[in-house]
Amino acid sequence: MAQKATDVVGVSKTGFAKAAENAVVTAAKTVRNLRWFRVVELEGQVTDQKVSEYRATVRIYFDLEEGA
Amino acid sequence: MAQKATDVVGVSKTGFAKAAENAVVTAAKTVRNLRWFRVVELEGQVTDQKVSEYRATVRIYFDLEEGA
Amino acid sequence: MAQKATDVVGVSKTGFAKAAENAVVTAAKTVRNLRWFRVVELEGQVTDQKVSEYRATVRIYFDLEEGA
Amino acid sequence: MAQKATDVVGVSKTGFAKAAENAVVTAAKTVRNLRWFRVVELEGQVTDQKVSEYRATVRIYFDLEEGA
Amino acid sequence: MAQKATDVVGVSKTGFAKAAENAVVTAAKTVRNLRWFRVVELEGQVTDQKVSEYRATVRIYFDLEEGA
Amino acid sequence: MAQKATDVVGVSKTGFAKAAENAVVTAAKTVRNLRWFRVVELEGQVTDQKVSEYRATVRIYFDLEEGA
Amino acid sequence: MAQKATDVVGVSKTGFAKAAENAVVTAAKTVRNLRWFRVVELEGQVTDQKVSEYRATVRIYFDLEEGA
Amino acid sequence: MAQKATDVVGVSKTGFAKAAENAVVTAAKTVRNLRWFRVVELEGQVTDQKVSEYRATVRIYFDLEEGA
Amino acid sequence: MAQKATDVVGVSKTGFAKAAENAVVTAAKTVRNLRWFRVVELEGQVTDQKVSEYRATVRIYFDLEEGA
Amino acid sequence: MAQKATDVVGVSKTGFAKAAENAVVTAAKTVRNLRWFRVVELEGQVTDQKVSEYRATVRIYFDLEEGA
Amino acid sequence: MAQKATDVVGVSKTGFAKAAENAVVTAAKTVRNLRWFRVVELEGQVTDQKVSEYRATVRIYFDLEEGA
Amino acid sequence: MAQKATDVVGVSKTGFAKAAENAVVTAAKTVRNLRWFRVVELEGQVTDQKVSEYRATVRIYFDLEEGA
Repeated sequence: MAQKATDVVGVSKTGFAKAAENAVVTAAKTVRNLRWFRVVELEGQVTDQKVSEYRATVRIYFDLEEGA
Repeated sequence: MAQKATDVVGVSKTGFAKAAENAVVTAAKTVRNLRWFRVVELEGQVTDQKVSEYRATVRIYFDLEEGA
Repeated sequence: MAQKATDVVGVSKTGFAKAAENAVVTAAKTVRNLRWFRVVELEGQVTDQKVSEYRATVRIYFDLEEGA
Repeated sequence: MAQKATDVVGVSKTGFAKAAENAVVTAAKTVRNLRWFRVVELEGQVTDQKVSEYRATVRIYFDLEEGA
Repeated sequence: MAQKATDVVGVSKTGFAKAAENAVVTAAKTVRNLRWFRVVELEGQVTDQKVSEYRATVRIYFDLEEGA
Repeated sequence: MAQKATDVVGVSKTGFAKAAENAVVTAAKTVRNLRWFRVVELEGQVTDQKVSEYRATVRIYFDLEEGA
Repeated sequence: MAQKATDVVGVSKTGFAKAAENAVVTAAKTVRNLRWFRVVELEGQVTDQKVSEYRATVRIYFDLEEGA
Repeated sequence: MAQKATDVVGVSKTGFAKAAENAVVTAAKTVRNLRWFRVVELEGQVTDQKVSEYRATVRIYFDLEEGA
Repeated sequence: MAQKATDVVGVSKTGFAKAAENAVVTAAKTVRNLRWFRVVELEGQVTDQKVSEYRATVRIYFDLEEGA
Repeated sequence: MAQKATDVVGVSKTGFAKAAENAVVTAAKTVRNLRWFRVVELEGQVTDQKVSEYRATVRIYFDLEEGA
Repeated sequence: MAQKATDVVGVSKTGFAKAAENAVVTAAKTVRNLRWFRVVELEGQVTDQKVSEYRATVRIYFDLEEGA
Repeated sequence: MAQKATDVVGVSKTGFAKAAENAVVTAAKTVRNLRWFRVVELEGQVTDQKVSEYRATVRIYFDLEEGA
């Protein structure tokens, strides 16, 4: 079945896996049939010399529905 | 003229060119003015120790319409 | 805050920076809360043995609105 | 389930998809539970100024059996 | 001392580090003298719109024993 | 024996292997002793929402003749 | 404002996010105005067939002070 | 129609777009039917602590004439 | 003569060449004998849906002085 | 004929070519029909501020025997 | 001054530096004003389970003469 | 233990390994606790149509001292 991919940046205060999970949570609000993702980039914000936020850019693949 | 790009995964039982063609067919259902594509990744599914499906992830570029 | 990325190709007769700027102008017509972009590819069209157009493919990141 | 990957070069006189398929056929002789593959490189041999052989280097992933 | 490398995909329900650790656990069942690994790819499975599994493809290096 | 490499873009209406073969046919008109090629890029043209042409950019290696 | 980048390898016994955080902690001892980082490489040490240490190589960007 | 590609380094005192344009001007002296180019590398020379020259390495594609 | 490289991010309101030039200006304040640079990344900031700043990350190479 | 590839790290006190050669020597102990290799990574160990060992990670390709 | 680049594969029985040098020797037979080269790929041939030849693919840059 | 990385370009008239060694010698003059390096780029200067100098750009990793 054909799929499409969309790039989403998720953020988290605790780590990269949680940031990727939040990207999926975000994508799930507007896209159905999410199947898997690949990490494209891992970054982090530093505030007052401490890591304040982890960021994961993930490419999320989802099935296209019949007729779409 | 400005263009946008969208990533689509097409599949086929016969080969990579057909898989790429199917990705274009899929994109054509919802996007107008498709112009060209570049292959990003070629993969395949294996079932019962045989290739059961070829997959082509293609980045498809399309013209943006005036006013869009 | 979660972000998404979209790839846009901007063109210009004067240079790469202007081409990138035009990609942002194009994206701004349909997407809100643009934040930053990264250049993915720089190309150019040649007509009658002269550069007739500069092209910049940029990946533009934008904030997703609450509830989106 | 954990997986391992192995790189195999398959060849064919007719095209890249057949070359990839032959790589899978080769891997299937000694490895069980093949699942999918990704194309790593596409090449070709030229003899007497004509393409005499297509080559596909594919990374084939397979499931590790329980206890393995 | 000479080393060899093998690619293993580890999975985990909790995160990327655990997935990488599981890849090492898997490799340790059949290969001795594991030394270090490098992450090649981080992915994830999505089921019912939630991350159901993190995947880490790691390249694991191990010492070859004398005489091997 | 020393070799040189030249990049050629071949096109075809039927698929990527044929496009690569056409690139070799083109190179063979002006260069002797072609030995092998590697695919650098696979692309396609889209006309009226259908794939109208496959394109394969291949790097073709050829032996340099004695004294050359 | 102009920025510079420095590459630091942080280590941790618990995971990649903590390793990246430790790289930032290390950089913070000698560099002011840290802003963000990007993960360049994720690795791990294996001792007695178990992961003994996670390593994150991060490129950390920091603002250059006026007059610097 | 088959194309070939050639790599040219153009230089300029004013910027990257002009450097790329000069590469095309150089290529046009010996090659006909130039069609488009892609930027491969952007560099610059520094003399007396100032940028004295911008350099753009571009891959220029040109149509091969019938019979060529 | 041995050289070292340092990564600097320069910014500009007018374009990428000026951003690269500003990176060199910044490096010149603390490092002597700058020789050349390579562009590593081109980015931009977007404010109120318009490009507000171009950014060029450049790797600047400089000669090491005798005895250094 | 189908081929497989295996990654081996060879070491040497004299240089990279010797390190690659040692990788081949190591592979030859357990694998037949070695054909060619490609250098994947060149590294070195530093002890007491001096290079104590050169390392070459090479991907070695070998023919698979009939029936294998 | 504008430059062009050409890719040449040099071979040697003693090592990679010699193979690169031979590529330059080969290029010097037909191209003037060679300036510098960059190593693109290092490979080797294996015969009777021993390295029989080192190969260096180098991209050689040369100045274009005035009027060229 | 945390590490930092620095990029140094070493040169040599005899080969790439010696060029890398010279980069380490250069780094050792100002940095303590060097541990290992990875080759980032191999290049060469050509003078009077002959290789006059080999260049190795190496990324050298060193341990950060306690308290640093």
